[in-house]
Amino acid sequence: MSGHVYVVGLGPGDECHRTPAADDALKRARHLVGYGPYLARAPVRDGQVVHASDNREELDRACLALDLAGAGETVAVVSSGDAGVFAMAATLFEAVELQGGAGCDITVLPGVTAMTAAAARIGAPLGHDFCAISLSDNLKPWETILQRVRAAAEADFVMAFYNPISTARPWQLGKVLDLLREVRAPDTPVIFAAAVSRPDERIVVVPLGEAEPGMADMRTVAIVGSSATRSVPRGADGVWIYTPRRAAPVSA
Amino acid sequence: MSGHVYVVGLGPGDECHRTPAADDALKRARHLVGYGPYLARAPVRDGQVVHASDNREELDRACLALDLAGAGETVAVVSSGDAGVFAMAATLFEAVELQGGAGCDITVLPGVTAMTAAAARIGAPLGHDFCAISLSDNLKPWETILQRVRAAAEADFVMAFYNPISTARPWQLGKVLDLLREVRAPDTPVIFAAAVSRPDERIVVVPLGEAEPGMADMRTVAIVGSSATRSVPRGADGVWIYTPRRAAPVSA
Repeated sequence: MSGHVYVVGLGPGDECHRTPAADDALKRARHLVGYGPYLARAPVRDGQVVHASDNREELDRACLALDLAGAGETVAVVSSGDAGVFAMAATLFEAVELQGGAGCDITVLPGVTAMTAAAARIGAPLGHDFCAISLSDNLKPWETILQRVRAAAEADFVMAFYNPISTARPWQLGKVLDLLREVRAPDTPVIFAAAVSRPDERIVVVPLGEAEPGMADMRTVAIVGSSATRSVPRGADGVWIYTPRRAAPVSA
Repeated sequence: MSGHVYVVGLGPGDECHRTPAADDALKRARHLVGYGPYLARAPVRDGQVVHASDNREELDRACLALDLAGAGETVAVVSSGDAGVFAMAATLFEAVELQGGAGCDITVLPGVTAMTAAAARIGAPLGHDFCAISLSDNLKPWETILQRVRAAAEADFVMAFYNPISTARPWQLGKVLDLLREVRAPDTPVIFAAAVSRPDERIVVVPLGEAEPGMADMRTVAIVGSSATRSVPRGADGVWIYTPRRAAPVSA
């Protein structure tokens, strides 16, 4: 009997943003596999076995899930947000390739990813062409990150930065903000959104000229507007930020 | 008494991918406003008033929602996927700005957007740095689109194309595929995913060298891999496509 791996995105935080399909997979699984703090957000039922692991152990975690399912078990691999965006789905298929195939069924269930959850809270900054870049240089050269940020800035994309900062990577975000200030106007809106829809949600909007790395932590997604991104007063609550459908032409 | 506009993303299709928060807003609303085919996918309850409009009438639709809410009504503006990604949320804030402010509360609720739903069905092609580009030149210059595609291709982003083709815009996707073939290898995987999670779902994977505009329609999102995107055999079902965390360096 062949087992099943479900790769599940929990959404940004509050269960009201988690899909019924994700919930259903979490219920079916006998084993829940994931990074400890994410598993702490998953509902755990009697009889389920929880396999919590550390941040840097993605590949081991994926292999564990495949091994369990290869032995006939039903397993949910849990990510925050959407499992396919800088999360466990890619790692799971890396493990499938390493193992020369999967001896089980695999279903990936999409979720609400951090950048669209953050965007919704502040308006619609991702309303037009945008890109998503991880600022972690653990697994790719720093030069690649800079080249992508520069290309995206010059082509006037809105940008969402995942993994902007951590204790092991304290200076990367500052370098990226410096680079952006060479290309984008100082009044370009920058959004730092942490723990969206969780009790400790924190959303800060500042002009690029005043953006500082200390405004982000490892739970933050940062969104930097394009030249077309605008702000609209939001009563006593501050501002709405949005990027209109009618894009400004890219300067030559 | 001030009304309320909820801007709601229905997700890609099947209600199992629609969040409870979106469902809740659809229940609260007395008025449902949106493009006809999307409203046809929303649950409608007795006593709700449905305001269906045509494809090109986004701004009128947003103004109608604000007017109704300004008169004290509760309104849900409905989009497919995530309302903040090439959908109604940006248009709503455009209308707020045009009207000089909103005389009502506004809540944007995120959803599962087309590209992450498509990605989940085929593996994890968005597992690393990616961008999302609308190929519609109704509201931005065609030259801007080409510049963005070229920049994203040269910086080796995975690319997701929304609005790739329509009867009014039949040639744009072909030009973009030709441009990509100048920069990316002919065996780069291209995914055409239409109506994901709906009864008429259709997902095609072809190498870039064989990709043709006729493989897309107006319900399709197209995803083009980066130089790092890989395929893994998927038993009798074809292939899984994923982009590993370990990115290849961008060629200079």
